[in-house]
Amino acid sequence: MLDVCVLGCGGVVPKSDRHLASAYLRYNGFGVLIDCGEGTQLAVKKAGFLLSRIGLILITHFHADHTSGLPGLLLSMGNEGRTEPVTIAGPEGIEHIVRSLCVIAPEIPFDIDFVPLGDFDSVERGGVSVTAFELLHSCPCFGYDIRISRGGKFDKTKAEANGVPMKYWKTLQLGEAVDGFTPDMVLGESRRGIHVTYATDSRPLEIIATMADGADLLICEGMFETAKLDRAKEARHMTIREAASLAAEAQPEELWLTHYSPSMPDPTEFVSEAAYFPTTVFAADGTTKTIKFK
Amino acid sequence: MLDVCVLGCGGVVPKSDRHLASAYLRYNGFGVLIDCGEGTQLAVKKAGFLLSRIGLILITHFHADHTSGLPGLLLSMGNEGRTEPVTIAGPEGIEHIVRSLCVIAPEIPFDIDFVPLGDFDSVERGGVSVTAFELLHSCPCFGYDIRISRGGKFDKTKAEANGVPMKYWKTLQLGEAVDGFTPDMVLGESRRGIHVTYATDSRPLEIIATMADGADLLICEGMFETAKLDRAKEARHMTIREAASLAAEAQPEELWLTHYSPSMPDPTEFVSEAAYFPTTVFAADGTTKTIKFK
Repeated sequence: MLDVCVLGCGGVVPKSDRHLASAYLRYNGFGVLIDCGEGTQLAVKKAGFLLSRIGLILITHFHADHTSGLPGLLLSMGNEGRTEPVTIAGPEGIEHIVRSLCVIAPEIPFDIDFVPLGDFDSVERGGVSVTAFELLHSCPCFGYDIRISRGGKFDKTKAEANGVPMKYWKTLQLGEAVDGFTPDMVLGESRRGIHVTYATDSRPLEIIATMADGADLLICEGMFETAKLDRAKEARHMTIREAASLAAEAQPEELWLTHYSPSMPDPTEFVSEAAYFPTTVFAADGTTKTIKFK
Repeated sequence: MLDVCVLGCGGVVPKSDRHLASAYLRYNGFGVLIDCGEGTQLAVKKAGFLLSRIGLILITHFHADHTSGLPGLLLSMGNEGRTEPVTIAGPEGIEHIVRSLCVIAPEIPFDIDFVPLGDFDSVERGGVSVTAFELLHSCPCFGYDIRISRGGKFDKTKAEANGVPMKYWKTLQLGEAVDGFTPDMVLGESRRGIHVTYATDSRPLEIIATMADGADLLICEGMFETAKLDRAKEARHMTIREAASLAAEAQPEELWLTHYSPSMPDPTEFVSEAAYFPTTVFAADGTTKTIKFK
């Protein structure tokens, strides 16, 4: 199962009651952080997660409200005892950006493995597989399609037919090859995994609906109400209605809206604008869900 | 008069109830910010000040908890309409540090005037005069001695004796020279101004007491209780007792303690350790005082 939490739902500037947009995913104790604006380290703690467990950080783009919390977060991860390497993935230039920010954090006590991504590049860490897809913002920006795969059930008949000694069954069942035998020799067909799609900041794009097709959860910006569509177009953001319309096409189980404009203190005022997609949740800081294998 | 506010009183990491250590001073509408850790832009707003009015930013040293909020703050100052230049002063290297941090904030809409400081260098902006003095921390670090000077009263007899035409009296009284006449030709002896000394992060040093001698206010770190003196020595910080002892020597009107360790949720538990100096205030986020000319 996968825990998913919107740590913050705010765009542009941190507010007293709204951290900057970011999300945390936890799978088998492995933490994936999406974006890290000013205050995200505090939002992680408020949501009850351990900073030291973050193994993969995905950066959507290099605007300050999505990145400026990195040096503080990385230092605090170190203070909380992290020594294992951390992967930071993002658009081309990610290493330069993070190293520049970390001019004030020279003593981070773990290695950082930088993964610059191109369109449809993937990175897999801790059993979580992530594919980047290009969005349309005022700078290079990625959405992330996140999948947890699920192998087939153990198939005793198949194992015996393939002549796999019983002493290897457990290891192979856990997905590890051993002594020339491979997991597919003891497992049935792969089963449906877990699928979450995350998309901020962008104008609405067909690729978002394509990636989120049938997902368990689509987390998508709904920065403005429709009355501010011109503003959304100009700044290359999305309205609530546009996000709901994408969800209506993709049919995820749920749509969570996030990255609200500071000009929108209560996004639920505009609940009627999400009518295209009835299972829309106006996420708030700390909105959490556990997605189980079906 | 000068408004002084501790925006945050925390050391090392931001907490839900404690912003990172920083202070705001306002003189005639001109804002001076001391330090800018993660979340300081929010603390400025919570305290009721305008980001756009900050004209001078003093950085004590380059640790992340004193600097990581800079890109977000500078961008938000721009979003709030600031276009006039801003001065940022700090230890040698200040320009490199701020420019590195601002890799994620390329579109700041005002010029930044960088002032790298040496020991006892001064900078004056908006009628606020600041002298840096070296502290003893794990990296180069300055305390700041802040003074608002106050000219003498208008002296009609002196003005007449110096043959100053009456039409210039008002201008000269406001401190501006005009047509060959200078303010001292119409003003009596200078009067006592306003004097605030700020010192974090450091071991206790004689220079702190010297600079704060007779000040209206000494704001000084009291990071640890005495039981953690060894920790304070190791990390080059100060205990509450050490800060109170410096104040007892300097005799400012008040001592405000700040920059508490995250390990000290309620510093007032240790009020007895400040007994050396009875007018000690355990500052909290938002502790504010207006200092008037006497």
